[in-house]
Amino acid sequence: MQNNEDMLSFAVGIAKEAGKIITEYFYHANRSDVVAKDNGTPVTEADTQVNRLVIDRIRAKYPDHGILGEEQSHEQARRELWVCDPIDGTNAFIHGIPTALFSLAYVVDGVPQVAVMYDPFQDLAFTAVRGGGAFCNGQKIQVSAREALDGATIGSTASYHQIKERAAVCDWLTEQGASLLMAPGNVFRSGLVARGLMDAHIFPGRGAHDIAAAALIVPEAGGKVTDLDGNEQRYDRLIRGAIISNGHLHGQLVEAVKKLGSEQFLGY
Amino acid sequence: MQNNEDMLSFAVGIAKEAGKIITEYFYHANRSDVVAKDNGTPVTEADTQVNRLVIDRIRAKYPDHGILGEEQSHEQARRELWVCDPIDGTNAFIHGIPTALFSLAYVVDGVPQVAVMYDPFQDLAFTAVRGGGAFCNGQKIQVSAREALDGATIGSTASYHQIKERAAVCDWLTEQGASLLMAPGNVFRSGLVARGLMDAHIFPGRGAHDIAAAALIVPEAGGKVTDLDGNEQRYDRLIRGAIISNGHLHGQLVEAVKKLGSEQFLGY
Repeated sequence: MQNNEDMLSFAVGIAKEAGKIITEYFYHANRSDVVAKDNGTPVTEADTQVNRLVIDRIRAKYPDHGILGEEQSHEQARRELWVCDPIDGTNAFIHGIPTALFSLAYVVDGVPQVAVMYDPFQDLAFTAVRGGGAFCNGQKIQVSAREALDGATIGSTASYHQIKERAAVCDWLTEQGASLLMAPGNVFRSGLVARGLMDAHIFPGRGAHDIAAAALIVPEAGGKVTDLDGNEQRYDRLIRGAIISNGHLHGQLVEAVKKLGSEQFLGY
Repeated sequence: MQNNEDMLSFAVGIAKEAGKIITEYFYHANRSDVVAKDNGTPVTEADTQVNRLVIDRIRAKYPDHGILGEEQSHEQARRELWVCDPIDGTNAFIHGIPTALFSLAYVVDGVPQVAVMYDPFQDLAFTAVRGGGAFCNGQKIQVSAREALDGATIGSTASYHQIKERAAVCDWLTEQGASLLMAPGNVFRSGLVARGLMDAHIFPGRGAHDIAAAALIVPEAGGKVTDLDGNEQRYDRLIRGAIISNGHLHGQLVEAVKKLGSEQFLGY
């Protein structure tokens, strides 16, 4: 295995390059480049370009590693795998909301070892190496200390459609006194949890690329990340959603998801 | 009356000063300064400091004008009035979401004549002088051309509680094929509408400070702003919510609000 700190520097370098592409398109793109993916999720030229950049850089530096990207992958069955979301929050990106982030994790046997989430709008680089704590622009970060749902702020997807389908969970959380705050961008929300600015959020999707970096950074900041049932999971294949929390609230969020059932929460 | 272009330069100058305070607190504040207002809305030291700045600058330059601020006012019964929201989106501000904006309008007899909305995170200054078009950092901006709710993106408050109370309207809009996108920050959403990145949004509150600048900037960008029933209103006193749209969709949004009734939509 390579030296993890070297790999982190390498990953941060890619993240900064990616950030330049993201902000360039965000502010200057011909927005007609925005096209629909087959599954209806919007994707942009920028998404594709960043994914390409990641594959090129990793293949050049670590030719024996694989890449699992949201848009495009390369040898994704390999044991040492880079899991990347080129632009998380494409809906935010398309509508001019500066909460679209880049996410990249180096994953060995399904376990994230090195991770970066980069916010190019605020120039915030969230980083972690397993066992070494979590940082934002070099400053140590920590999750919130809140232990009760009463008064907690729980992040949520910003789509009314998705929220409505999960109303049983949302209603139960608000009955316990939590505030649900919708902010577009799943990786963005994970950054808020890592910094203690949001107590937790729940991710309803199946993409490992959405969570792989947060699954290292948030625990290294003192929090916890599991699947929707509260179990550990691998990040080199499809995942079963994620609960991203400060740790203290984790069990209560697992309970919350049970109000609907994790299968239904995932939208099966 | 003063020269409107001079007043705009003056207003933009205050906005940039305010922006420095906002970002300084956002990134460095001791977050324990965040206290609860009497009505439960969070307010920060930054809010108070920006409001104070606005009053000081306007009193020094236009001693015969009044100021209607969210936190503090001065001679607010005067005919020539500056209507200011020092930090719109305090919830975003508190939770580290960079969609908190400064808003200031020069209003005569209830009608906005000069306006600025300033996004200090992206350094975007939205400006307008009555009859002169709308601009973002000096570039002319324009609302979207979309005429059908089917496919439209309608902005919404990011609070689950507020959304749930207005579910009848949200449901009807989604039945027509619109996507509701929750993004914290009412002034931020108005900026997206003015730039054509969001087709419309509906504001459920009563504060003129939230809408006064948008009520000039969005129409100058080709859109329309009215109260919840589709009527013009004054911006020197409490308002009856607002529909902020690209114009084409305006009538349909008035219809949407009727599904619940404007009184109930306001939360009476």
